Order: sequence, then C-alpha cells, then structure tokens
Amino acid sequence: MQILDGKQTAEQIKAEIADEVNRIKARGGKVPHLAAILVGNDGASETYVANKVLDCKQVGFDSTLIRLPADITEQALLDHIQQLNENSDIDGFIVQVPLPKHIDETRVTLAISPAKDVDGFSPASVGRMCLALPTFISATPNGVMELLKRYQIGTAGKHCVVVGRSNIVGTPMSILMSRNSNPGNATVTLVHSRTPNMADICRTADILIVAIGKPDFVTGDMVKEGAVVIDVGITRVADASKASGFRLTGDVHFESVKTKCAFITPVPGGVGPMTRASLLQNTLKAQALREQL
Amino acid sequence: MQILDGKQTAEQIKAEIADEVNRIKARGGKVPHLAAILVGNDGASETYVANKVLDCKQVGFDSTLIRLPADITEQALLDHIQQLNENSDIDGFIVQVPLPKHIDETRVTLAISPAKDVDGFSPASVGRMCLALPTFISATPNGVMELLKRYQIGTAGKHCVVVGRSNIVGTPMSILMSRNSNPGNATVTLVHSRTPNMADICRTADILIVAIGKPDFVTGDMVKEGAVVIDVGITRVADASKASGFRLTGDVHFESVKTKCAFITPVPGGVGPMTRASLLQNTLKAQALREQL
Repeated sequence: MQILDGKQTAEQIKAEIADEVNRIKARGGKVPHLAAILVGNDGASETYVANKVLDCKQVGFDSTLIRLPADITEQALLDHIQQLNENSDIDGFIVQVPLPKHIDETRVTLAISPAKDVDGFSPASVGRMCLALPTFISATPNGVMELLKRYQIGTAGKHCVVVGRSNIVGTPMSILMSRNSNPGNATVTLVHSRTPNMADICRTADILIVAIGKPDFVTGDMVKEGAVVIDVGITRVADASKASGFRLTGDVHFESVKTKCAFITPVPGGVGPMTRASLLQNTLKAQALREQL
Repeated sequence: MQILDGKQTAEQIKAEIADEVNRIKARGGKVPHLAAILVGNDGASETYVANKVLDCKQVGFDSTLIRLPADITEQALLDHIQQLNENSDIDGFIVQVPLPKHIDETRVTLAISPAKDVDGFSPASVGRMCLALPTFISATPNGVMELLKRYQIGTAGKHCVVVGRSNIVGTPMSILMSRNSNPGNATVTLVHSRTPNMADICRTADILIVAIGKPDFVTGDMVKEGAVVIDVGITRVADASKASGFRLTGDVHFESVKTKCAFITPVPGGVGPMTRASLLQNTLKAQALREQL
C-alpha cells in the first residue's frame, strides 16, 4: 500500500505557484489577489479561512479577509459581493460556507461573478465544467484530479465508484472522472443514500472516491484488493485526548482498508491540503480565464 | 413487454400545452413564440426544423423560421443570435445543429442568452440543471424523464446504466437520474467508448438508457430480464425499400431485446416525439423562468 501524500503534493504545487508569482513580479505583472468573506464565528470556518489566508502569504498572493457579523442582512452581504465583483484589484473571491440560516446560500452563490468564482460553485462554472470548457473547477474535485495525475494513477477504462452526490464534491467528481481526459475516461458509478447495495458496488471499484460525510463509513470488507481509495471526508469527532477537543476523521476506516488497497489518501494530509492548493491554482489562473469567460 | 409509447405521450403533452395556450389567450396573455435558425440545407436538419415549426402550429405557439445560407460568416450568425436575444417578442430560440464546419458551435451556444436557451445547451443552463435550480433542461433528457414519469416507472434505488457520455444526452441523463428527485434517485453508471466490459455492465441495468449513436448496438444478450430499455438512438440507415431511401434505426436491436425487457421505447415513436414535446414545454415555461434567471 502506498500513501497518496496530499500534504507533500500540495507543498510542491505551492512551490510551483510561488515560482510563478516571482516570475509575474519580475515582469512587473499583477500579483493574484484572493479575497474571502467570513460571516460570523463558526469554529471550523475560522480555521478554513485562516488557512486560506496563510496559503496566500506562502505563495506570495495578496489576500483580503472581510469579516462580517453573523446577523448581517442578506442584502448587505450581497452588496459586499457586488463590490468584490466590481473591484478590479480582486482576481477571485470566496464566501465561506456555511452561512447563517437567515441567508440563502443559493442567492449568494448566484451573486458571485463567474469571472471571480474561484470556488467554482456558480452555475456558469459548473456548466462549463460539464461541457469541458475552460473554467474554475471546484477545489476538492480539482484537488483529487491533480493528486491522481501527479501520482500517475491510470484511470482510463477503470471502474470508478463515487460515494456521495453532493453539488460540490460527488457530482462534479463523477463528471470529471467520466469525461474524455486524463485523469478521466473511467466508467463511473455514482452511489448515494438511496443506493440499496452500496457495499457490493464499492467492492467492484478500481478507484473508490468517498465523499459522504460519515466518519469511518467505508470499511475493509467494502474495498477490492488493489483498489485506489480517495477519502474526501473530514469530520470533527470529539476526542478528549486532543488539546483541541476533537480529531479529524475521514469517511474511510483507514486501519481496515489500508491492508487491502494499493493507494490511499490519509486524513488529515490527503485531500484536504490538495483542496487548499486548488484554490490557489484557481486564483492564479483567474486573470487568464477572465478573458475567456 | 410493454411499449413506452412516446408518440402517444407526446400527443397528450401537446394537448395539455394547447389547453394552456388557450387559457393564456383567454386572459389576454402573450402566446409563446419560438424561433429557429437553420443554416444551410442538411436533409435531416430540414426535417427536424420543419417538425418543430409544425409542433408550434399544433399547440398554438407563434413560430419564426430564420433560414441562413451555408456560407454565412460566423459573425453574421452571431449577429442574428444577438437580435433574437434582444427581441422581446421571442420567448426562446434554437440554432439547429450541426452547423457548417467553418462555424464554431461552442461560440454559437455561448452567444445564446440563458433566458432564451430552450435547447438547454448553454453552460448556465447545464450548470443550473446540475445544481437542481430552475432552468431549461435539454430536450432529449427531459423527454426521457417525462416518459418515465408518465409511465410511473420506479427509479429510486434502481441501477440505471447510461450508455454514451455526450454533452446533450448521456451526461445530463446520468445527472438527472442520480439526483434526489422523482424520477431520479437511481444508482447511475455512465459507460462509454472507453469502457472495456460494456456488455457486462449493461446486463446489470434495471434501467438501460442508450445514447451512443450506433444502430442496433445493444442486443438481447446485453439486457437483463425485466429491464426498462430507453433507446435514444436515431440513425438514418440506407433502405432501398423506402420511398425516402432510408429508415430510422435505434441503438437497441428491438427484435432481440423486446422478449427480455419489461418496457421498451420503439424507434421511431419513442424518445423522438418526447424530445419534440420537450422543446414545446421549455418554450412554454420560458416566460416564467426568465424572471428567475
């Protein structure tokens, strides 16, 4: 079994991006600028956004963090988004989710200009991905594709089972893996909460991508000998032995699966860092992409 | 075995639309108006567009056919599209494909306003479909969903195999069948030209949707006893015994499959008429949808 080391791969990607930023600076070009809107004080969201700002610093991007109170009105948030859409210094921006319940996440997503939608969540971005047109591909699926590519995992003609049909991971993952590209060209089965025989289907997977948000859901008996296992799950599970009070747990039961599979992503240190690196990749390409959108 | 009668179902849908048009007229509302652009003189395209105009007449829609020469420049075609985008009397329009080789179909698709994209081919429409937001769903996948719905075919938890990954049929079909809706909630496997064991996978399908464009490709030995078989294929095969010189042939070998399956769509008279009816459904909803886009 070989570990697909997302942490190391992400560091390599970040080093490549930092080199590119240096080249941009050397030729007097505009350094990419990422903005992030954080509404309220959700613990996990604070961590995610802080990490995104740190990542920008590490590669030499400019970054702006806009903190807004939890009781902000939807309209006031939409006004902030409109300002970012119009601000030519900002190349891309994200609105960290989840948002407070009184705010309609769909309306917020729709308000973000497709040209600055570095999270790739807007309909225009999703549609362009489906049609294989140049676009922002959402960070997690993009990170998984990048990891498969850099480890030169063969996917053409393989059976890929994607567990979970979310808009931001499972569904786009299934589309990317089935289309005519490398990685891609896999026969893809998308399973979800309404699938009666999920374990049987998982056992047929050459490549198993799990994004269902249930800690330790996939166990060794559900995995074929020699499979490639990608664990997208990242749940905070209470753990009194940790200073933080929790540990991060994937959707795959690592101990029982590691003895059967050929490749596996650990949690933490697998898909998570790749997701972070993808956001930087999207921000880097925003200037070039803007001319095509 | 029961025939899924697309012709009869489409007639029923058209009757419902005609009733709705009468109600619109009675209250002094605007009758839906579909425009179609036909470039050149491709035989099949001539037939398709003529049928679309006839369908409009049958339900009481206004229609406009814009014929353009095969040697029209791309820019001149884009100008026509822009005029239709801006013409408030036109509720929706289509540009019949294929287009002459000197014209970039992607550029044409991108030029159509999402608010008038009744073919549902633009990135915005495709993305909104993926995200389950209100939109135009492209005519063939929409027609298949409508047929499954009206015949009350249970799809939840069933294994649906979609053969072919085209942008306009296979891929959207796989997304629609897997999402949380009725019809939908199926476990979906998308197979294509790079799938090595296509026959084996087809044999596991409770619902088999074939859109690969190869006449008689799926034979009886590839179908599970009791399956639901949807044949999207429609190829003109030379036939000297016909006045037209050709017959329409599906992707499914009807004679060998009909004895095994529980339901099957014939060709012609299956998915084809449903596709035509879907375009009318999309045009009918264009006015209401425009306010949401």
